[in-house]
Amino acid sequence: MLTLRFQAGELKLSEVFEVSSNARILTEIINVEIMYEGKTGYGQASFPPYMKEKREVNLGFLSRLDLQTFNSPFHLNEIHRYMDSLSSDQRPAKAAIDMALYDLMGKISGLPVYQLLGLETSNKLYTSLTIGIGQEDFIRRQLEKAKDFTFIKVKLGGNIDYNKHVIELIREHASQPIGVDFNQGIEDKEAAIDMIEWLSGQQVKYAEQPMPVSMEPDYAWLKSRSPLDIYGDESIQTASDIINKHELFHGVNIKLMKCGGISKAYEMVRLAQNLGLKTMLGCMVESTCAITAAAHLGSLFDRLDLDGHLNIADDPYKGIDIQNGELLMPEGEGLGVSAK
Amino acid sequence: MLTLRFQAGELKLSEVFEVSSNARILTEIINVEIMYEGKTGYGQASFPPYMKEKREVNLGFLSRLDLQTFNSPFHLNEIHRYMDSLSSDQRPAKAAIDMALYDLMGKISGLPVYQLLGLETSNKLYTSLTIGIGQEDFIRRQLEKAKDFTFIKVKLGGNIDYNKHVIELIREHASQPIGVDFNQGIEDKEAAIDMIEWLSGQQVKYAEQPMPVSMEPDYAWLKSRSPLDIYGDESIQTASDIINKHELFHGVNIKLMKCGGISKAYEMVRLAQNLGLKTMLGCMVESTCAITAAAHLGSLFDRLDLDGHLNIADDPYKGIDIQNGELLMPEGEGLGVSAK
Repeated sequence: MLTLRFQAGELKLSEVFEVSSNARILTEIINVEIMYEGKTGYGQASFPPYMKEKREVNLGFLSRLDLQTFNSPFHLNEIHRYMDSLSSDQRPAKAAIDMALYDLMGKISGLPVYQLLGLETSNKLYTSLTIGIGQEDFIRRQLEKAKDFTFIKVKLGGNIDYNKHVIELIREHASQPIGVDFNQGIEDKEAAIDMIEWLSGQQVKYAEQPMPVSMEPDYAWLKSRSPLDIYGDESIQTASDIINKHELFHGVNIKLMKCGGISKAYEMVRLAQNLGLKTMLGCMVESTCAITAAAHLGSLFDRLDLDGHLNIADDPYKGIDIQNGELLMPEGEGLGVSAK
Repeated sequence: MLTLRFQAGELKLSEVFEVSSNARILTEIINVEIMYEGKTGYGQASFPPYMKEKREVNLGFLSRLDLQTFNSPFHLNEIHRYMDSLSSDQRPAKAAIDMALYDLMGKISGLPVYQLLGLETSNKLYTSLTIGIGQEDFIRRQLEKAKDFTFIKVKLGGNIDYNKHVIELIREHASQPIGVDFNQGIEDKEAAIDMIEWLSGQQVKYAEQPMPVSMEPDYAWLKSRSPLDIYGDESIQTASDIINKHELFHGVNIKLMKCGGISKAYEMVRLAQNLGLKTMLGCMVESTCAITAAAHLGSLFDRLDLDGHLNIADDPYKGIDIQNGELLMPEGEGLGVSAK
């Protein structure tokens, strides 16, 4: 019998995190535990302020869940069907449940989740480090943190002068390849293509969600002209978004919090590959629990951006380590996550 | 370290099996074993004469495989990538390797494969029983075998008189719902829709691949007029076929031998569901090894047609049982298959 516990909380950040739409020093979360035969599976939901998912609604969803009717965590697929029958949204809560079930499945079988999924790899996996929006001294501090990473992701926005200035500043100090993330910042397609063309001369490898979701009709135009790969992020929440919008982007950024967990992300990355899309595994600001859960899928993706826990002052979990940008999976069964 | 052994063989059938394109009393197979740390994983490839895959070519493919470079069966995804880099075809051989790897993954973890995949279910799973093409006395004998099944699948072809006669004969003796499989038999779209309309009055639930693959341009026409669900089978081999042809069919028949194994079939059923297609898990004439492997995915599908082992005189394996049409999964780890 499965027993569910959950609790709302906040993650405090070490440093203000600013993207195109907002700045913050806290991220709201829900910690989830599922107990089964003396074992505990961990999961976590995270709620960046720019997502439409609100923590209170997800708490309500979790309080309506009755997992006691399922005999074991191996009913994972049926539990997803049950959750989807209750609501098509509340995907952060579903992601937390999914992680906790995988954690239990791994603990029962004695396997780390990546083995359970047949995803063991001999290759090293590397994540980019993300630099938020900020003043010059902030960017310099971030560059110091990024110096041993093999790839840097830079948050840009609608201010073209800022964008150019920060990329030039980074290029003075760092030679790694860069990806840029506009978080929907540019609201004019001509400005977007001009910006992207300028970036293509700066050893920038991709541009993520340059324009708002509301400008999706202009994305095919942008894609056909762009010298950089255009990744969809806010436009791509679920598998059906990939099906409906795959012609608008070169690649997609898949995140557990957007889609509802490991099993949904697995489904989406396979779908994206079959449609000829490039794939990135991304994250929100979230704890080591959720980052580690995502990392188990890492070998399936072209690009990894799994650094959302590095700016957290009081991470309640330990799990994955990152050294010089390399993801070092934890020892142990299941997710390999434990409460500190 | 993974060690591969394989051997060509034949399965003798208890009774001649006739479909629209051929009749046979034997099916060529390759039995595969992968050894890892004292455990053996079982797999099997099957070669119906109407498939373009030939056993000799698949034997050549298997003899070129070097699995010793992979540390464990948990490198499943990398092994698929490696196999796909050697050839885009030889999917029966790939299916046999995939089964054997899942068998090992399950045996190492102490879990049946359906648990490894999160597909445990409290629901009962039922397969249809398939009645081949034959004379009246043959049909009567098959109906006797089918009497406790909840669903009957009937092989039809291009001979409209035969088709009507056999359905009327079955309806004299049996009231279960029926699905019909034309195996590309009808080579005229007007004849196909007339046939399907007639069948819809006989409690027939679906029509599988009524027209040849070469007539795919006419399938959209047929689908838009058909009172029955049209399933694609020979038209649908891989995930890219589902993407390219999903508008031609209401549903797809996915088979391990067509797509390359459990992991590929999993990917395809999720893809089909996301595209709004109905799904059937089918099989070739194949042994209990391959049928059991497929059955682990059963709870994901709308329809199951997993009776390809029931007409085998000398099945080399034991595994799944079928009672009154219900699939009874074997006890034990991995596939739950053992050599007799």
